[in-house]
Amino acid sequence: MSERTEISDLGEFGLIDHLTKNIELQNASSVLGVGDDAAVIDHFGKQTVVTTDLLLEGVHFDLMYTPLKHLGYKSIVVNLSDVYAMNAIPTQVTLSIGISNRVSLEALNEFYDGVYAACNHYGVDLVGGDTTTSQKGFVISVTAIGEVAPDKFVKRNTAQKGDLLCVSGDLGAAYIGLLFLEREKKIFLESPGVQPDLEQETYVIGRLLKPEARKDMIEFFAEQEIIPTAMMDISDGLSSEILHICKQSNMGCVLYEDKIPIAEETRMAAFKFEIDPTACALSGGEDYELIFTVAQSDYEKINGNPQISIIGYITEPEAGCTIITKGGGQHKITAQGWNPIK
Amino acid sequence: MSERTEISDLGEFGLIDHLTKNIELQNASSVLGVGDDAAVIDHFGKQTVVTTDLLLEGVHFDLMYTPLKHLGYKSIVVNLSDVYAMNAIPTQVTLSIGISNRVSLEALNEFYDGVYAACNHYGVDLVGGDTTTSQKGFVISVTAIGEVAPDKFVKRNTAQKGDLLCVSGDLGAAYIGLLFLEREKKIFLESPGVQPDLEQETYVIGRLLKPEARKDMIEFFAEQEIIPTAMMDISDGLSSEILHICKQSNMGCVLYEDKIPIAEETRMAAFKFEIDPTACALSGGEDYELIFTVAQSDYEKINGNPQISIIGYITEPEAGCTIITKGGGQHKITAQGWNPIK
Repeated sequence: MSERTEISDLGEFGLIDHLTKNIELQNASSVLGVGDDAAVIDHFGKQTVVTTDLLLEGVHFDLMYTPLKHLGYKSIVVNLSDVYAMNAIPTQVTLSIGISNRVSLEALNEFYDGVYAACNHYGVDLVGGDTTTSQKGFVISVTAIGEVAPDKFVKRNTAQKGDLLCVSGDLGAAYIGLLFLEREKKIFLESPGVQPDLEQETYVIGRLLKPEARKDMIEFFAEQEIIPTAMMDISDGLSSEILHICKQSNMGCVLYEDKIPIAEETRMAAFKFEIDPTACALSGGEDYELIFTVAQSDYEKINGNPQISIIGYITEPEAGCTIITKGGGQHKITAQGWNPIK
Repeated sequence: MSERTEISDLGEFGLIDHLTKNIELQNASSVLGVGDDAAVIDHFGKQTVVTTDLLLEGVHFDLMYTPLKHLGYKSIVVNLSDVYAMNAIPTQVTLSIGISNRVSLEALNEFYDGVYAACNHYGVDLVGGDTTTSQKGFVISVTAIGEVAPDKFVKRNTAQKGDLLCVSGDLGAAYIGLLFLEREKKIFLESPGVQPDLEQETYVIGRLLKPEARKDMIEFFAEQEIIPTAMMDISDGLSSEILHICKQSNMGCVLYEDKIPIAEETRMAAFKFEIDPTACALSGGEDYELIFTVAQSDYEKINGNPQISIIGYITEPEAGCTIITKGGGQHKITAQGWNPIK
């Protein structure tokens, strides 16, 4: 009898490691392959960045509370976020969709309205794709391509001891938004007459349904002539991403709970659910903010930017990854981010 | 009440036209967008070609008779075929998969064995992707990237009056292979004890399950300094692709039935099913051969290549697209290729 190993035993990153461990790059133009936010391809003077994401109905989105226009917008944005996370500028996207006969043309138009809105907002061109039928559920696959000056791309595995650990914007909102929408869905399914009560939660719900990618951060880095020493986008929760950077850089870190940026709206909403907003920032997903490290010599440059929070610093690997809580306690950071392989 | 239009009313190409009709390219590097085998992006001295395909279980493949290793191989090859169809050389691929918990790690290993075999055979690098769970069915999305010397890429819409209409290899085999496998599946489902009888059909089944992309043709064109005037790959059947080239080039054509290359194995297999092998070539899909047009001045260069058949020529648009049958009859060519939107 043949052996059978469950995929769930490995988890997403274990699975990716397993499947890609034997790759040997053959083309001189393949500067960076699997394992970062995006691949890097050399093209005579500029380097090209490529990243791709697969979004499946019922896994990544619920059409019951996701407007199709927002879904189209978000499908593009989450890929652009990966390009920005390489310190690159996105220029083109391809979009493939699989649709069941449940989807009408009007619905698809709404979806594409969102796609084009995102393309316009971020200045990228939709240059190709594939359209097919699906037996069940809406399937979306986006590939984004961007450009970066040679050797200006920023990887995950290059954080250095003493570097400042920074994040853009604020964290945890999208997760709370998801909790609200899931709660309202449950109420609606039980009592279809009840109108959803979401008006007070527009911020957190907006962060979930219509995230933006941090183009402004990449522009700020260019203006200030900052090249982060390591960077990635925050899609699976802060703690998961910090552990990626530290593990891949073979470093440790100290993170201060009271420095983690959390919007007042997120705190209020978390209060209603009686959950800890810090936990939302650490373990919630889909914030699409950037986490990056910079040399201490760049402190003055970043300190004046209200969109950047310095939340800790990089240490030697022996020290591990530690969070200092508001009460002064020290805990090991563990990954409890969203796991798409379950 | 809001309007509802069924997607099936438009068909795949109508749908793509509809969804992409308002695209305005924003980046100077976007040389060619939606509407060909692949997009073209300019990168300072070389141009980059990008193409993507979405393959869904139950729509594009049936795991009951598709070995996973072959599926992995084919997933890559069908995308490379689109790159070659631009007269470009593929260099990188990204691969995203969605898998249900029905898929074991061993099964996934087989799939990736095929993926890597294709990457090695064609000299391309797997540089990224996404791995996620799916609620139902195996989802595969591949994006292939290639390079081409500036302005050497070949589009579909540039065939000229008097050009020779050519195809590589032979046609119709994959469709017959599919008929055999579907028949054996039906027999197996009705009488699980019966062993499949496929040994005599290895050629046609091989063409379906493990197609190859015509890298050799692109190399031949380069050696002979031929630049086809128009080209695309044959994935939906010869007649569908001829109509694409003629419609997009605003030309007509004459096609000779007796010039269409069909392997002896395909003729024999078609005979068993009592179907016309010409119909298989015209309307069957998944041959992944190249159809191209060349100037008459290139006749001597291509005439000696046994892998190339001259099957007709390009005419003025007023003449329409005509097939001259073996009996000397004239018929209008109609598209009956495989329609993924149904």
